[in-house]
Amino acid sequence: MIELVGFDGDDTLWHNETIFSMTQERFEALLQEHAPGDVVHARTLDTERANLDLYGYGIKSFTLSMIETAIEVTDGAVTVDDIKTLLDLGKAMLSHPTDLLDGARDAIVRASQRAQVVLITKGDLFDQESKLARSGLAELFDAIEIVSEKDERTYRRLLAELGVPPERFVMVGNSMKSDIVPVVAIGGRAVHVPYHVTWALEEAEEPTSGWQRIAHLDELPSVLSSWGG
Amino acid sequence: MIELVGFDGDDTLWHNETIFSMTQERFEALLQEHAPGDVVHARTLDTERANLDLYGYGIKSFTLSMIETAIEVTDGAVTVDDIKTLLDLGKAMLSHPTDLLDGARDAIVRASQRAQVVLITKGDLFDQESKLARSGLAELFDAIEIVSEKDERTYRRLLAELGVPPERFVMVGNSMKSDIVPVVAIGGRAVHVPYHVTWALEEAEEPTSGWQRIAHLDELPSVLSSWGG
Repeated sequence: MIELVGFDGDDTLWHNETIFSMTQERFEALLQEHAPGDVVHARTLDTERANLDLYGYGIKSFTLSMIETAIEVTDGAVTVDDIKTLLDLGKAMLSHPTDLLDGARDAIVRASQRAQVVLITKGDLFDQESKLARSGLAELFDAIEIVSEKDERTYRRLLAELGVPPERFVMVGNSMKSDIVPVVAIGGRAVHVPYHVTWALEEAEEPTSGWQRIAHLDELPSVLSSWGG
Repeated sequence: MIELVGFDGDDTLWHNETIFSMTQERFEALLQEHAPGDVVHARTLDTERANLDLYGYGIKSFTLSMIETAIEVTDGAVTVDDIKTLLDLGKAMLSHPTDLLDGARDAIVRASQRAQVVLITKGDLFDQESKLARSGLAELFDAIEIVSEKDERTYRRLLAELGVPPERFVMVGNSMKSDIVPVVAIGGRAVHVPYHVTWALEEAEEPTSGWQRIAHLDELPSVLSSWGG
């Protein structure tokens, strides 16, 4: 029996990584006189990884890491005008409309006919709340959980708070590292819906069992049925 | 009868605004060849106010607003080195130890002998969780609520989730705008513990009743007693 279905937000219900990728491309174009795109790309990832413990996830963290990378990769030769452009790129990301993925609303509605549904999304609180409000999906959920990290400890805490044993929980998301691996590890089940781009810091090795992959959210009801949902 | 006592975090249980003020002073010193300190100060506040709807609260927002202000107030004459310094100032704030205010732990312990105690703190999720972990106070609370804004709607939602009627709730905090006004407005009571510095965006007109001011957290138990807690 399935009591609770958790949905990830970014790149599961609405587009997110495409906005980051698009901005990353503009960032590389901005610095093209100073360094090749692939070098800027790699250095940006290094900076983000180094800042993760201090900044956490989200667009403001990314903007700060772009500025830091721009200064370092150009040895200080980047212009103040370019840095202003990076601030503007960050603001454009923050005010970007929330574009739903195809089938997102229907998947939540159909899951909610079988179980409680909760949004479990990671990142910057303010930005996630703002995106959720613009998504028009908030009222479909029984609970909203915005967390700073999606690891085993977080899922254990959430399930304890919601009073649901792990074996009656299914998580649906695009990130192997955040949505699948920790859920399977604590005895829950997971449905992987890959997005066409994956941020390098979200990659992880696939568990051998306890999860299924679907190509489209349309297939979710039949997986839940097969699991007794 | 009092069922629930809410504590604010920043500048109520641990020092926060002093770290911002100290950084603001360094920021003004950094730009002293370009503009007088009071001009930089006023322009920083203008930038923060203009960015609030897009950035929300917190150190990363402040860092981005400092960089924007530096570029604007100097008409682009600020150096890239100075911008690097601003990134470093932001990081120093994020890794600053959580310094507890005198009597913080004892106030929570004594309140918890009378009622449930909850931390209700506003700002950046990642930074607040990190500060709370470093504070050593987390295990004293029955619940932790990190919210993006402390307005009437937020307090109503939290009390509904916790199943506590407003008249059985007392909020303790340093901000008239975030801890006192909205709580009194929905029918709760509030205890104002002023901090020696108040961020200009946290100022508000005082309600005529429903709250008390104390000079030190030591006085909280007697206020709670007088209210039947």
